[in-house]
Amino acid sequence: MTVGIIGGGQLGRMMALAGYPLGLNFLFLDRSNDTPAAAVAPTLVGEFTDRRLLRELARRSEVLTFDWENISLESVQSLGRRTHVAPPLAALAMSQDRISEKKLFEKLGIPTTRYAAVDSAVALSRALRRVGLPGVLKTRRLGYDGKGQAVVRSAEEAAAAWGRLGGVPLIYEEFVPFDYEVSIIGARSRHGEVAIYPLNCNLHRDGILRLTLAPWSAPTLQRAAARHLRRVLEHFRYEGVLNIEFFVHRGRLLANETAPRVHNSGHWTIEGAATSQFENHLRAILGLPLGATRARGHAAMINLIGEMPSREQWLGHRELHWHDYGKTARPQRKLGHITVLGETARERDSAARRLLAAVDPASLREWRARTR
Amino acid sequence: MTVGIIGGGQLGRMMALAGYPLGLNFLFLDRSNDTPAAAVAPTLVGEFTDRRLLRELARRSEVLTFDWENISLESVQSLGRRTHVAPPLAALAMSQDRISEKKLFEKLGIPTTRYAAVDSAVALSRALRRVGLPGVLKTRRLGYDGKGQAVVRSAEEAAAAWGRLGGVPLIYEEFVPFDYEVSIIGARSRHGEVAIYPLNCNLHRDGILRLTLAPWSAPTLQRAAARHLRRVLEHFRYEGVLNIEFFVHRGRLLANETAPRVHNSGHWTIEGAATSQFENHLRAILGLPLGATRARGHAAMINLIGEMPSREQWLGHRELHWHDYGKTARPQRKLGHITVLGETARERDSAARRLLAAVDPASLREWRARTR
Repeated sequence: MTVGIIGGGQLGRMMALAGYPLGLNFLFLDRSNDTPAAAVAPTLVGEFTDRRLLRELARRSEVLTFDWENISLESVQSLGRRTHVAPPLAALAMSQDRISEKKLFEKLGIPTTRYAAVDSAVALSRALRRVGLPGVLKTRRLGYDGKGQAVVRSAEEAAAAWGRLGGVPLIYEEFVPFDYEVSIIGARSRHGEVAIYPLNCNLHRDGILRLTLAPWSAPTLQRAAARHLRRVLEHFRYEGVLNIEFFVHRGRLLANETAPRVHNSGHWTIEGAATSQFENHLRAILGLPLGATRARGHAAMINLIGEMPSREQWLGHRELHWHDYGKTARPQRKLGHITVLGETARERDSAARRLLAAVDPASLREWRARTR
Repeated sequence: MTVGIIGGGQLGRMMALAGYPLGLNFLFLDRSNDTPAAAVAPTLVGEFTDRRLLRELARRSEVLTFDWENISLESVQSLGRRTHVAPPLAALAMSQDRISEKKLFEKLGIPTTRYAAVDSAVALSRALRRVGLPGVLKTRRLGYDGKGQAVVRSAEEAAAAWGRLGGVPLIYEEFVPFDYEVSIIGARSRHGEVAIYPLNCNLHRDGILRLTLAPWSAPTLQRAAARHLRRVLEHFRYEGVLNIEFFVHRGRLLANETAPRVHNSGHWTIEGAATSQFENHLRAILGLPLGATRARGHAAMINLIGEMPSREQWLGHRELHWHDYGKTARPQRKLGHITVLGETARERDSAARRLLAAVDPASLREWRARTR
């Protein structure tokens, strides 16, 4: 049984590594044969919009899924209804457009930030008046890892951001001076079974996830986040893993964004949960029973960005799990991650601080500032 | 960095799956391209004795290792000293010959069964007199999963077994009415670091491993087994993972056999230990620091032999980990394994009983008879 995956990044690679023990095979589609996934599974090389390759991928696979959301909806839709694509394309379409995402949050009663669509200089002035300052101007589509965003503190900054980002549809959102960020990941299977992981506490810097601590012990937030997640899963009759990121502001959740796929803030589940998000995504899209999502210990996940530290040195930490995606080093690029597990949250936090101090001291300062 | 592996069975496959997160790549040599490993890594197809292919494997790899011990020592030796092969070939040679293995146990003060070499009918009579009845007649070489063995209870049975097995060098060993079997797995790295896993309790039936329970709480046996294992590791200045199987008879260990490789009785370490035997084997042969070997919970591993049970049904057990090697079903063939984890040994044992009752009731009866 073969799973076809559009996109051969680290998420696809980890999906394949989780799926082989289930007896699955994998086939990827990506623009190059030098991807993290191509080292572990065969890859069709071509554009994501190449209909001939998409048809070949569909023909050779039981189900099609994707490892990032910036893929061409139209091309995948062109495969027709007989091709089983999961997660559902309606969820993908929603997450590709920040305005649709906001509207869904509103429709499902999920608190989110105030916002306005911006597609002209006039609309921008109106948005500034309605939403107020400071705010964040973002592209409606194709944003990831903080790309296509600008914080706006004044009318002048708004004009400058418009000059830089304008030309494509934008969204202007209120800036939330949040205390910290959390995310929640869950899976819904083809048969309607739902399994939700413990809450993640996330630290971003320069728009890139740096650190996740999970489980994050905040029972009220966990319950609220799980309720919101479940609503989105049910709304789409979803199949697969879905992630929602929230700001925590004055003890309340404000939904920021969704990802209709396995997510960086769930990498800790490989060693830190009974079943990883990657395995549960595969189980969900294949209609298999979902695996237990309970935490095993207390995990901290630290992204390795821009350059890989010395493997020889780091493997000396005996409770550390190393994940090298096999990518070429480049500034701001996610090359791998490490996960450490502690018996208690306290033990985990102090291990995370020691590791961050070594690989990403700027993020440690940021974390200290937030938790002071 | 590429690791070359001679033999592309399930052990090689699980080694590759454990090694990808370390940033390693893999290249296999096997007689067919339809092996468990070939689904997850490139494979050179040819005989294990094909010197051209062995040279190609060596040229493209940082280090050569093997996933079973019945490979041609001579062919690998022909690669010369500049090829780094680990574990050391001296350990492989020892484990390929049951007489050398016995002599090593004696030399290192490791208690083992009484035995005699048998290469003629006359030598067999002498062996029967010296070692006594009952006993087990075995081929000195190329035995695995109970193949090439016969239990001998009388002179007539001895003659019959000689007729069936004779023609190749044999060994006659005393039959030990053991209470149960244990094994111990450990790794020694190129730099002399040693890491030893908790003890495994194993149940065989028809010469094939059926069930492993680990950690097996028997502190005196654990200490003795670890001491014996360490002696063998040090003796060879070993690099990689080594396994020793013991009979437990009247509360004492009697060494039965060694395997200079990752071992079926260590499969539980994938989910049940901080670092799996597969990852530690790779760390050891590459001279990387070894990972922690402590248990995470209490594991039971059950082999899936002859046919795979229904994945749909079994994945419904939420604490169960599924391992399908992607092999064609065939009687007595190891096709996969499942691991269940419990919070306590008692919880683990009862889960193991329930699962065995469903997939291998004959082994459950055997286990009940042993533990009564």
